[in-house]
Amino acid sequence: MSAALRPGGKPRQTIRDIAELAGVSIATVSRVLNGRPDVSPETREAVLAVVTREGFSTNRSARGLPGGRTGLVGVMVPIVHAGYFSFMLSGLAEALYEQDLRGVICPTLHEHERELGLLDRLMHGTTDGAILMLPTETSAELEALRRAGFPFVVLDPRVPLDDGIASVSAGNASGAREATEHLLGLGHRLIAAITGPAGWTATEDRLVGYRAALAGAGIVRDASLEVRADFLVEEGYRAAQHVLGLPERPTAVFALNDNIAIGTIRAARDAGLSVPGDLSVIGFDDLEVAELVTPPLTTVRQPLAEMGRMAVSLLTRLLDGQRLEALKVELATKLIVRGSTAPPRG
Amino acid sequence: MSAALRPGGKPRQTIRDIAELAGVSIATVSRVLNGRPDVSPETREAVLAVVTREGFSTNRSARGLPGGRTGLVGVMVPIVHAGYFSFMLSGLAEALYEQDLRGVICPTLHEHERELGLLDRLMHGTTDGAILMLPTETSAELEALRRAGFPFVVLDPRVPLDDGIASVSAGNASGAREATEHLLGLGHRLIAAITGPAGWTATEDRLVGYRAALAGAGIVRDASLEVRADFLVEEGYRAAQHVLGLPERPTAVFALNDNIAIGTIRAARDAGLSVPGDLSVIGFDDLEVAELVTPPLTTVRQPLAEMGRMAVSLLTRLLDGQRLEALKVELATKLIVRGSTAPPRG
Repeated sequence: MSAALRPGGKPRQTIRDIAELAGVSIATVSRVLNGRPDVSPETREAVLAVVTREGFSTNRSARGLPGGRTGLVGVMVPIVHAGYFSFMLSGLAEALYEQDLRGVICPTLHEHERELGLLDRLMHGTTDGAILMLPTETSAELEALRRAGFPFVVLDPRVPLDDGIASVSAGNASGAREATEHLLGLGHRLIAAITGPAGWTATEDRLVGYRAALAGAGIVRDASLEVRADFLVEEGYRAAQHVLGLPERPTAVFALNDNIAIGTIRAARDAGLSVPGDLSVIGFDDLEVAELVTPPLTTVRQPLAEMGRMAVSLLTRLLDGQRLEALKVELATKLIVRGSTAPPRG
Repeated sequence: MSAALRPGGKPRQTIRDIAELAGVSIATVSRVLNGRPDVSPETREAVLAVVTREGFSTNRSARGLPGGRTGLVGVMVPIVHAGYFSFMLSGLAEALYEQDLRGVICPTLHEHERELGLLDRLMHGTTDGAILMLPTETSAELEALRRAGFPFVVLDPRVPLDDGIASVSAGNASGAREATEHLLGLGHRLIAAITGPAGWTATEDRLVGYRAALAGAGIVRDASLEVRADFLVEEGYRAAQHVLGLPERPTAVFALNDNIAIGTIRAARDAGLSVPGDLSVIGFDDLEVAELVTPPLTTVRQPLAEMGRMAVSLLTRLLDGQRLEALKVELATKLIVRGSTAPPRG
């Protein structure tokens, strides 16, 4: 039936639009369009009136998007099941649904070659554009992609990007400053930072915030208190063991993500130290697990789902050919105080 | 360039096939096809030889699938960010990638009307078939969908399904029996079960396993020890409070999922009881959080990622018109013993 309902000329409506215009549920519109008997005659008439007036199509592409658009958006995601990415994916999927776009999921496993292959398929396939989460591409590679005319938005850039590339991230520096100021406010002066890989935006920008807070409190930076790790629990554990073995043991650790914080709490426990009694620990991210560990983690919340939504918003504007005023969007973080931070002893 | 490379007749190969046949990476094939300079002449020649011999297409649909196939598969997922679903989604996305299919993500939020609307769009849109995770549809609604000729597989069915519907789930009954036998083996005799909603497969099948284990140990079923909750932490907490207030307090709780187990551990702690000293708790699922809580959770691991992979495997066979011998696939669970279970005191 739907195929027959295609008046020429004006843009056709999706099932969602029809439902809204007719004041009924999507399921009801579906029942009417499929000729099912379980709809009242009045409702059927009302829905068909809207369909006849507005036109109907089953997807955005058939609605007559310019330039042979398909309504499909590639979504490159490193690890689908990791809480960090799945929250961004969740907000993103919801926003795509609302925009009547469909996200094609492309798991990259952080593998550069695989990403290149996927990007190639997206560009030469049937997607209108893409959202790239924490891509492994260099800024130069992404810039080449942009110049090739493929619309995309980088969600949570791994490294600093060229000016022309649209991206969404959290306010890493300001969030890290707030975390460090929280520890300073509790009375800590010897505060270690356990970071992710060097050169990553998430490491460098958060270190900027950490150092700014220390400087603001008149504390001279001590490079031996800045320890590199990666963003996983095990490496956080090892780095924390090193920190806890320093001649002058810090009373607090700013872990640059929640995984590192969890590894740090474990290392403290295994060293016979209590958290937060002997050591305060603050994380960054506020993953689901943060409030489930013991003690529940004080951390900096990244608005991950909202970041995903914002990436869709930027992409739809790129797809519509709009100029983006703010190509680099940073969303505010929020300090979440739980049980892993306290004033230092004595 | 790729558009020109389309010899008629035989099925064309994807970039992945070309890479395999030429013994190079996907990225290298991509570089050759895009005419980039950073490829050695020998490699370029080898890749182009394969492309010329085999044909090339950027996606499965252009490869000449019968019946106007698109290579797109709808993936209905209740909550993208929930660890339970994101692990299934992860295995599923990986298997689709390997099959050169593309998954279109459809978040349903467990809303029945929304699901119906999405299903309608999938059926009348451009997808070849779908995988439905924990769908809200009744068995009759799904049977109607099947009779309409739309290929789909149910991943983790919520309710028992008609015989003709392909589905993948974990061995709920056998896993639950193993969990209960673990508690019995430690010496527990008074074992409560905190369940999910009545009528759900995950509730009823696990209760079957629980009761079978008790019966096997010669313990008469006590209905007051079976307490209904839902599968979320808060409701698990409330149900556990009830259980802990019973005149004869159980020494162990079989929580029918990890969320309930986490709620139970919290309720025990708030009641001044130690886990596993005063109360043993065992869960079901083995989510990422299970080993991060204190004490780390003894639980029954569902092979969630593997279940996602298996759903793709069944769907591709349906898409290829094959008969499925085993329409209802159950994958084995595994008991994971950690720190939340111990022999009863005294």
